[in-house]
Amino acid sequence: MEEIILRDPYQPKHYPLLVVISGPSGVGKDSVVQALAMREDYAFHFVVTATSRAPRPNEVDGVDYFFVSEAEFESLIHQGELLEYALVYGQYKGIPKQQVREALASGKDVIMRLDVQGAATIRQLIPQAVLIFLSAASEEELVVRLCRRQSESETQLVRRIEMVREEMLHLDEFDYVVVNRECHLQAAVEDVLSIITAEHARVHPRQVIL
Amino acid sequence: MEEIILRDPYQPKHYPLLVVISGPSGVGKDSVVQALAMREDYAFHFVVTATSRAPRPNEVDGVDYFFVSEAEFESLIHQGELLEYALVYGQYKGIPKQQVREALASGKDVIMRLDVQGAATIRQLIPQAVLIFLSAASEEELVVRLCRRQSESETQLVRRIEMVREEMLHLDEFDYVVVNRECHLQAAVEDVLSIITAEHARVHPRQVIL
Repeated sequence: MEEIILRDPYQPKHYPLLVVISGPSGVGKDSVVQALAMREDYAFHFVVTATSRAPRPNEVDGVDYFFVSEAEFESLIHQGELLEYALVYGQYKGIPKQQVREALASGKDVIMRLDVQGAATIRQLIPQAVLIFLSAASEEELVVRLCRRQSESETQLVRRIEMVREEMLHLDEFDYVVVNRECHLQAAVEDVLSIITAEHARVHPRQVIL
Repeated sequence: MEEIILRDPYQPKHYPLLVVISGPSGVGKDSVVQALAMREDYAFHFVVTATSRAPRPNEVDGVDYFFVSEAEFESLIHQGELLEYALVYGQYKGIPKQQVREALASGKDVIMRLDVQGAATIRQLIPQAVLIFLSAASEEELVVRLCRRQSESETQLVRRIEMVREEMLHLDEFDYVVVNRECHLQAAVEDVLSIITAEHARVHPRQVIL
């Protein structure tokens, strides 16, 4: 049975949040998280994913990913020490529980950037997580952004748009939706910070237990 | 059966909020509401209470109160047109539903300043209301503020402190708690605005139907 916790204004205690920033690809999840990291008025722990693939030339262990061997990754799976994991093209990717646990214990909010599927998994595993869906202002705006990447063929682009439409159907599993308007990144960042401030003011804190 | 509403980021619609700012007396509810009213980046409708008592010299009808006759007030009661009302020392005080309905229809958020008892009544009547409990940082700070008013005898002060303690027990019926620290009014106002921003970003808006 869960203990009922009330925020006591006379004895302020910080209940760190687990915040998931998600949304379709191309919507600007990385930009929002990077802009948050630049804020001097807000400190958080950004979750670094573990992977069994080899690091690319510019990648730094512990910053871009935690690079672990396949055997190490599988041992994490067997110990139930991954919050979420997937095997994509023969390579593992997942979130080590221990990292999240330590960050929360330090009192810092934990922020994860996940695709919509990953966010839905977190919702199941950790109902107390705060799920933010980052959206474009319109499908057109998102398509323009995806085109600008120039890394995709027309077929890939069509597939991506279909995927975005499917991802939009998961909106109802999220707590909040923030529109990341073209050229208005800071407004989206402010909205995310307001959501975090409001969550810290909840009388009934969403206490995360892992 | 209630219709399930989802905020659509591609078709942004404004769902006006009903926000109750409450808390013990002396905590600064008026100051917070006044500071909110000064903000040029946020427009809202402040609910004016109706009363059957006569206006005092400086009071303006429609600003301080809506001054109505006892007969008019009783007719509002019989029509079920009051959100909440009380008879105190033979004088009626209450919130006309029509005013709130019109303000919400205009698309503006509606803000009410209510004592803790009144806020609890609103919670029962309008579960979708956003209830903010304004608190002092400590009981000592609140007592100092009450003393500074100098309008109260020692007996009244003791009674007031007892009342504050009782009011604190209602905290769990609120959504959010904001600490209005001595000399940090603007911080409290920013917290209230963050809560309002976050509520406007909810995927499942709290739609108020009166």
